[in-house]
Amino acid sequence: MLIVQKYGGTSVGDLERISSVASRVIKTKEEGHDVVVVVSAMSGETNKLISYAEHFSKNPNKRELDLLLSSGERVTSALLSIALNELGYNSIALSGRQAGIYTNDTHTSARIEKIDSSKIKNHLNQGKIVVVAGFQGFTKDENVSTLGRGGSDLSAVAIAGALKADLCEIYTDVDGIYTTDPRIEKSAKKIDKISYDEMLEFASLGAKVLQNRSVEMAKKLNVNLVTRNSFNENEGTLITKESEIVEEPIVSGVALDKNQARITLRGVVDKPGIAAEIFSKLATNNINVDMIIQNVGQDGTTNLGFTVPENELEKTKEIMSKLNASSDLEFDRAVAKVSIVGVGMKSHSGVAATAFNTLADENINIEMISTSEIKISMIVDEKYGELAVRALHSAYKLGE
Amino acid sequence: MLIVQKYGGTSVGDLERISSVASRVIKTKEEGHDVVVVVSAMSGETNKLISYAEHFSKNPNKRELDLLLSSGERVTSALLSIALNELGYNSIALSGRQAGIYTNDTHTSARIEKIDSSKIKNHLNQGKIVVVAGFQGFTKDENVSTLGRGGSDLSAVAIAGALKADLCEIYTDVDGIYTTDPRIEKSAKKIDKISYDEMLEFASLGAKVLQNRSVEMAKKLNVNLVTRNSFNENEGTLITKESEIVEEPIVSGVALDKNQARITLRGVVDKPGIAAEIFSKLATNNINVDMIIQNVGQDGTTNLGFTVPENELEKTKEIMSKLNASSDLEFDRAVAKVSIVGVGMKSHSGVAATAFNTLADENINIEMISTSEIKISMIVDEKYGELAVRALHSAYKLGE
Repeated sequence: MLIVQKYGGTSVGDLERISSVASRVIKTKEEGHDVVVVVSAMSGETNKLISYAEHFSKNPNKRELDLLLSSGERVTSALLSIALNELGYNSIALSGRQAGIYTNDTHTSARIEKIDSSKIKNHLNQGKIVVVAGFQGFTKDENVSTLGRGGSDLSAVAIAGALKADLCEIYTDVDGIYTTDPRIEKSAKKIDKISYDEMLEFASLGAKVLQNRSVEMAKKLNVNLVTRNSFNENEGTLITKESEIVEEPIVSGVALDKNQARITLRGVVDKPGIAAEIFSKLATNNINVDMIIQNVGQDGTTNLGFTVPENELEKTKEIMSKLNASSDLEFDRAVAKVSIVGVGMKSHSGVAATAFNTLADENINIEMISTSEIKISMIVDEKYGELAVRALHSAYKLGE
Repeated sequence: MLIVQKYGGTSVGDLERISSVASRVIKTKEEGHDVVVVVSAMSGETNKLISYAEHFSKNPNKRELDLLLSSGERVTSALLSIALNELGYNSIALSGRQAGIYTNDTHTSARIEKIDSSKIKNHLNQGKIVVVAGFQGFTKDENVSTLGRGGSDLSAVAIAGALKADLCEIYTDVDGIYTTDPRIEKSAKKIDKISYDEMLEFASLGAKVLQNRSVEMAKKLNVNLVTRNSFNENEGTLITKESEIVEEPIVSGVALDKNQARITLRGVVDKPGIAAEIFSKLATNNINVDMIIQNVGQDGTTNLGFTVPENELEKTKEIMSKLNASSDLEFDRAVAKVSIVGVGMKSHSGVAATAFNTLADENINIEMISTSEIKISMIVDEKYGELAVRALHSAYKLGE
């Protein structure tokens, strides 16, 4: 097999950790696989470099920032390759450019445009373990670019796609994806397999293991992703095509997001363009609106509710007060979003009814509801968030 | 004018120092000059990275080591460029590759083979201040290379040569070249102008400001070098062609090297090839032999004396004892080398006689003498080293 392994910042957090990564890479190689390793900067390094840059400028020149930030991953890749060579394994460290990762020129959040896979392949054909500095590429003007948040994951997935690798393992400090947060519900179980779409829902609900960009790319390039823990030998969670998952559970997991605030406008004049005006104003101010619910009100007016991240509530208040769209504006930061995710919902009826009944049985009032094909999200009073999660986790028998 | 400025590790030692460098660069730009800045890694960074590499291997893979070490200068160049841009000056940071510095593939001590000066020129033509990461280049295989000790100076001189710059300023933490070490002789004066050849002699005598490789390259490329102190506004020392120095002093300076050990072999059989055998054996063991003196002895034998750096004496002893070249082998680590340097010697007689008389007047015995066209070196008892320097400094009126 050809396996791409990506190790994040805590997995290469210090020199001992890099040694430990070297052992794991060698173990994979010894099992007969070809290995490409993608590494992040040692944890703390990127933040240190950013703080250096911010010493000189609140808004550092992005091209130079990329030259600066790319050095962290180069250091890790060189060190890991030195360690592998010392242990008797022919290895080569490659910068983003040397690995043939071409991006557009949107510095600090560049998009990968093309991977010249011949560069890595040549080294693999010579039996080498290829270590690639993650998070970076280069532009057609030969400038160094970086890919933004979660960039090393993107590097790994893109390389796995370009090489048609059998597996792309993403190593972090957690075992994988859980049916819910184990700190809330002790019976939470690690999920063995999950579909790309479910993972996308989990990621947008705040699961920190993988970011949406990487999962989307894996889906597009048909890359089998596995998230694993570099601190133990446990099997991780495989993220793959829906068709690969033979026995789908109806619901895969339950997620809780307490970083939500609810805004309610009552008595909005019900004429075309009002909602557009509100939400385009919020968008130009970079407010991330999550759920939006509109209900018919009285006398030709309508009630509009939506949620934003709690830390954007103050800014939202300010913008809304200027709009004068309604005389009746309510804000509530004490809300939580509870979501259930599962591809099985598509083919099973009654999933939503079970959720609503479960919360009713616990006397939890549902303030807002929003559904997608594979997700049901409910806004409840923040103090009932954990209780709602435990009740739903049990209702869908996720701990069994 | 087009000015290349190079700032060493202490000159960019922390963020405050980098700000101070930015001010100096801007001052030069505001005086109407085009400026190319070459920077070293922040002091301590390169050693830190080397220690990381040595954690994994006593003999790290040199190609990977170069990828690792080159990151230090990239960080400094990016930070300085961010600072300049923030202060309103259009600036661009370039890696060795982006600056068009091609080297051979002798990793960790690569030689510059070619500079594609169009790359820097294009940016200069757009009015930019160009900041280049020193110490690094790239090979025809597109690997990152580093230039070894004093590498950033080399980068600066090579760039100045390729761009036909009017001046190449090397900033360190000392004012320039002195007639002798001011800690030994208080009347020591900074030299305003000195020829390449004299500077080469001073450098080989241990003057730390510039290394021979850089001076040799400056001489070859006809680059006017100035060493200056980045911590003050003092004028430095100009190192230039002999013909540019109108009024040459006969002697430019006096140097002391206490890191010397003397080896004497008496009664060496005087037949061809004996000296060759000894010195090729020492050379293959990387012993840096400095002075070599051979005198006729008695009965067809010869006396051979030479000096090596004190820290290589033990190794030298070991090698010499195996050679069995002589039954009479003496070692003396308590010696010092006192040297006078000056291009004026070429055209003035009596310079050596003055030196010998001066030491005789102080009752200092001269144990070995070695001369070149512009240098006279004398080995004396180590305890008289400083006295000899002061006496010679006064004899040639260097403090006046």
